Amino acid sequence: MPETHSNDIPSRLTPLSALGEFGLIDHLTAGITLYHKETIKGVGDDAAVIDAGDKVILLSTDLLVEGVHFDMVYTPLKHLGYKSTVVNISDIAAMNGIPKQLTVSVAVSSKFPVEALDELYEGIRMACDRYKVDLVGGDTSSSNKGLFISVTILGEAKKDEVIYRSGARPNDLICVTGDLGSAYLGLLLLEREKAVFHANPDMQPELDGFDYQVGRQLKPEARTDIRDMLARLDIRPTSMIDISDGLASETLHLCKQSGTGCRLFEEKIPINPQTRELAMDFKIIPSVAALSGGEDYELLFTIDQKDYDKIKDAGDISIIGHMTDAREGRAMVTSDNKQIELTAQGWDGFTA
Amino acid sequence: MPETHSNDIPSRLTPLSALGEFGLIDHLTAGITLYHKETIKGVGDDAAVIDAGDKVILLSTDLLVEGVHFDMVYTPLKHLGYKSTVVNISDIAAMNGIPKQLTVSVAVSSKFPVEALDELYEGIRMACDRYKVDLVGGDTSSSNKGLFISVTILGEAKKDEVIYRSGARPNDLICVTGDLGSAYLGLLLLEREKAVFHANPDMQPELDGFDYQVGRQLKPEARTDIRDMLARLDIRPTSMIDISDGLASETLHLCKQSGTGCRLFEEKIPINPQTRELAMDFKIIPSVAALSGGEDYELLFTIDQKDYDKIKDAGDISIIGHMTDAREGRAMVTSDNKQIELTAQGWDGFTA
Repeated sequence: MPETHSNDIPSRLTPLSALGEFGLIDHLTAGITLYHKETIKGVGDDAAVIDAGDKVILLSTDLLVEGVHFDMVYTPLKHLGYKSTVVNISDIAAMNGIPKQLTVSVAVSSKFPVEALDELYEGIRMACDRYKVDLVGGDTSSSNKGLFISVTILGEAKKDEVIYRSGARPNDLICVTGDLGSAYLGLLLLEREKAVFHANPDMQPELDGFDYQVGRQLKPEARTDIRDMLARLDIRPTSMIDISDGLASETLHLCKQSGTGCRLFEEKIPINPQTRELAMDFKIIPSVAALSGGEDYELLFTIDQKDYDKIKDAGDISIIGHMTDAREGRAMVTSDNKQIELTAQGWDGFTA
Repeated sequence: MPETHSNDIPSRLTPLSALGEFGLIDHLTAGITLYHKETIKGVGDDAAVIDAGDKVILLSTDLLVEGVHFDMVYTPLKHLGYKSTVVNISDIAAMNGIPKQLTVSVAVSSKFPVEALDELYEGIRMACDRYKVDLVGGDTSSSNKGLFISVTILGEAKKDEVIYRSGARPNDLICVTGDLGSAYLGLLLLEREKAVFHANPDMQPELDGFDYQVGRQLKPEARTDIRDMLARLDIRPTSMIDISDGLASETLHLCKQSGTGCRLFEEKIPINPQTRELAMDFKIIPSVAALSGGEDYELLFTIDQKDYDKIKDAGDISIIGHMTDAREGRAMVTSDNKQIELTAQGWDGFTA
């Protein structure tokens, strides 16, 4: 077998990119033994679910890595702290739970001044205040290079309130909150201005008028309000997930774990009008930004058809398709009425 | 103000090393608002404590960073996975709780093959099996450089079983499990052999006969057995902490949070005879290895004097001193009967 040079993986070994982020987690945690009857759900949903008597504890964790998840050139540390917190809160919202406690671990270069970490923590505190979450622990360390933020969150819910990814059935309606794709366009704007700045540091960034898209990227919010809205409407979704990796990827997660197929309708996907225009300026089909862009942190959920009347005028919720029998495949019907296979081209930390 | 060169922090800003690891955490989390009555204890002990009806949930997190906490040259990935898990389990043991669920987040260079992560996870699984802990979640990401492991653990205990750092009173006896300093000597051995190897790659490492010290460093165990032993002896410690940073640093934590002083007796500190000899070979006073070396993951706790008879023949537990009134200071009485101030020279991730 020919030797490869030192920067490559020898050919008998498997590169991480061969599995992708989700495949890797599945691979690493396959066949794990669970010892405790309290562990209701381990790996495989937005949060683990742990029995705690008359309620359950929800547990989720997210890792944010400089150069992979964020670019320090255009990410203010306060926003980064806020976003690190919110993406975890969103995972609890996706289980229909209430976020409660949080730990934050940070590794930074020792060249980082305390004042920079203060900014980061001010953002974390702002999110904790906004969403009423208690920062209860963490760890700090130096790193040789780059900033790493690991956040773990605890939430709670009554046992029968928890909504898993796996409960959808054929004919259930697929619903999504808010609008999609803006966070991705915000990213493209920031990347464009970074490139302009590198070419000519005297140029002023042109982000004016795009506050919405840039805000969605740098300072997203979690849809903790949806839990109350659904309770008020007397609707119990059959499955739910938050949109961190893009509508296509998340829909496929629901289908896979529920054992269903799906029909999404391109023209039903909610996209902000300005985002739509901006996408065209970037030569991107707007629905592709929604399907594959990610980081919108809206909630995607399915409901029984009988709940249609309850939800149709709820506002801020779009019905974008329905589940099907698995044999009918996972597809999107395009605006010109063609049926195409739904594929995930979401963010992947190992091919970036 | 003179400009500093780019590698330094401008003088108006504060380097992280000025605060140290514990000072930094205190600084970053000072004055945090806790919103939930369930949050019994936030930052400041081995784990956060959260009310869950008839029991409490314990929550702790640890971050391990390549080049700071471990050296890939002599740390097998399986051992690293095992140790990352055990150090978290130890935090739950230090609260007198039972470890239950765990999440593991890992950032690695995309040049890492899947097989290397498999090794790491095999170690994590071994520890989960050994200590009956459920791996219930995690996250993976690429990193630009180096391996980062963030582990978060949940444990449980009855509310009145939890032992905090803050409950010690003057005259309480200071006890420690097992023996101390061996993990540090193991580290010194590994560092010496690494230096020898760098000087001459044909030299064979000389670690034979020092399995105990090397094992304590690379594959430590958590004292989850002590909870049962104390229950059997009918002893409820007044305070407890695990020894990750060295006996001196941990004793000072107990004193600070309990508002006491202390007298440690150097000659009472339990040190393995071979470790003692090895320390002398390295020109290190053996007690210094115990006081400042760290990573032994033994438990340090205080008990009421009335429990002396119950514990004196328990085995594997040494009484090494007693708490005093805070005004009497925090001191160690040396083997030649001198009283010296106890100072923490434990591990500090920001000055390494």
